[in-house]
Amino acid sequence: MSQILVLSRQALAAMLDLRTAVGAVEQAFIQKSARQASLIPMLYHALHAGADFDIKAGHMPQSHVYGLKLVSWFGHNPEQGLPAMPGTTLLFDDANGQPLALLNAEGIGLLRTGAAGAIGAKYLARPDSRRLLLVGTGAQAACQIAATLLVMPGLESVQLYNPHGAAKAAARLPAIAAEAAGLLAGCGQALDVPVTVAADLPAAVAQSDIIITATPSHQALIDAAWVKPGTHFSCIGADVKGKQELDPMILKHARVFADDIQQAIEIGECQTAINSGILFQTEIAGEIGAVMARTLAGRMDASEVTVFDSTGIALQDLAVARAAYDLALQKGVGAWVAL
Amino acid sequence: MSQILVLSRQALAAMLDLRTAVGAVEQAFIQKSARQASLIPMLYHALHAGADFDIKAGHMPQSHVYGLKLVSWFGHNPEQGLPAMPGTTLLFDDANGQPLALLNAEGIGLLRTGAAGAIGAKYLARPDSRRLLLVGTGAQAACQIAATLLVMPGLESVQLYNPHGAAKAAARLPAIAAEAAGLLAGCGQALDVPVTVAADLPAAVAQSDIIITATPSHQALIDAAWVKPGTHFSCIGADVKGKQELDPMILKHARVFADDIQQAIEIGECQTAINSGILFQTEIAGEIGAVMARTLAGRMDASEVTVFDSTGIALQDLAVARAAYDLALQKGVGAWVAL
Repeated sequence: MSQILVLSRQALAAMLDLRTAVGAVEQAFIQKSARQASLIPMLYHALHAGADFDIKAGHMPQSHVYGLKLVSWFGHNPEQGLPAMPGTTLLFDDANGQPLALLNAEGIGLLRTGAAGAIGAKYLARPDSRRLLLVGTGAQAACQIAATLLVMPGLESVQLYNPHGAAKAAARLPAIAAEAAGLLAGCGQALDVPVTVAADLPAAVAQSDIIITATPSHQALIDAAWVKPGTHFSCIGADVKGKQELDPMILKHARVFADDIQQAIEIGECQTAINSGILFQTEIAGEIGAVMARTLAGRMDASEVTVFDSTGIALQDLAVARAAYDLALQKGVGAWVAL
Repeated sequence: MSQILVLSRQALAAMLDLRTAVGAVEQAFIQKSARQASLIPMLYHALHAGADFDIKAGHMPQSHVYGLKLVSWFGHNPEQGLPAMPGTTLLFDDANGQPLALLNAEGIGLLRTGAAGAIGAKYLARPDSRRLLLVGTGAQAACQIAATLLVMPGLESVQLYNPHGAAKAAARLPAIAAEAAGLLAGCGQALDVPVTVAADLPAAVAQSDIIITATPSHQALIDAAWVKPGTHFSCIGADVKGKQELDPMILKHARVFADDIQQAIEIGECQTAINSGILFQTEIAGEIGAVMARTLAGRMDASEVTVFDSTGIALQDLAVARAAYDLALQKGVGAWVAL
């Protein structure tokens, strides 16, 4: 009888460090762009008003795994103290089809998305970047900050902006800073830069070298006129139709990269710029994985504005799930159950 | 933190009885035909030569669950003592998206397929049927026999036929009879009819009231000329392109039902008859679920030949998984694991 390893959200939080997640997501992006890994078309199903689910699956031959993530959305769950987007990941051995692990996808989701924003900065921002601005103070904020500090050691300050006001950002700041410090501590690092509230968005944008947007916004938050030359944007928020965070004119004059171009056009930050006729698909430079593999040029000079449109691909989850599985074996974490 | 119930193949075998599976599959067929349950288009992916996987998902609102089954095929697995088609089922609560159970899909697969063959007989065979012929002596044989004896108590004899010769059938007979007896014992019944080998297929067909075909054949095994009036066929074998067990002329002159008409035409026993122009889609009477719900007439008279083309639908697995989950809660079986 076969055994499967079950990794709960708690087990993942205690074991999986952000550096491991960044490394795994880098491999996912590189393998995707080199066509060394397969993404399978997403299945979506509406359950009833206020609830749906989707299944994203993929195969990573170099990591010897395939698998799927089923994520549901139940809009009324938070009222009952339950997560709005419960998710489950199943990982299989591509040598014999045996199930390897069942993982809480939420525990992986935050890290893999934080890793993506940071990877955008690592490969596209100016190496001398000093100031990071995080637009959005939700569940993603701490992970984005910690991952970016990890990969951009020259950063000297972090500002937090909440579109609903500085008071909201100030209220969230201690928890976000503590969570970011915890994530960095898991990698043997300290949170050694000041994290402050940005009250004036135009001024904060004009001062920043790296801007990560991670809000649920459905309209532009950042005006092209505010942006200084050489800025890098990692756009995390837009991942379904109708979402948007940047003025399309920013994309028009930037060198734009995506995790998956088709997905960026359909559901990412690029969608509005494309749909409004401001940006053309041929103006998107390419996939970030190609920049990482050095088959595509990234930033061309220090004055260019760069954008990474991160929409999220199943391979990120699979790669981090695989890394978590390996770590769990090493550390003896998780519950082995007969299946 | 949420908990998930893990039901291994061994736990399912010890707990899940065939009568429960038959009842669950009946509900699946009825809900499907009444459009009270949703089937989601299948995802298929080739991993490499000799290996692939598919994901079948569905939602049963009346049973308050949704979920998926991932079944892989690794052609070389049996050489290493591993199952060729490992499968895993995930079940979720449709009220809040919480994962309910992870189940070994193989433990469910045999029962749900055995139940389907028997349900074909229960709703389409002549009530006075006395003789059952099982064509095929593989993994499905015992389950088909036991389930059919369960739902057709007037049966007086079972014959086993193996297309590769009577000696092979004789060699397999003791194990199949013992397994069928075990499955019946799980329902409080005895295997109280003789199970014998059929050496002469034309003669066995001519004597039988119910014929279940469950082989991997890619060509017709049963000639229309051998079939006596009033015979019922449950066709289990054909479930991918190219498979076939009956002479298409049998279908041409029979009243034909399917679990899912489109699937029957594409991958079921109907495919060859349709593709060769012998059978027209409009000649297929309908879905068996409609017969069960009495919205469609089944057998019209005692002399008619009836066919149930069973291709397998995800709702069978979901319904049996749901029943297994309920049974496990009642009986305190399975492993609860934090997720």
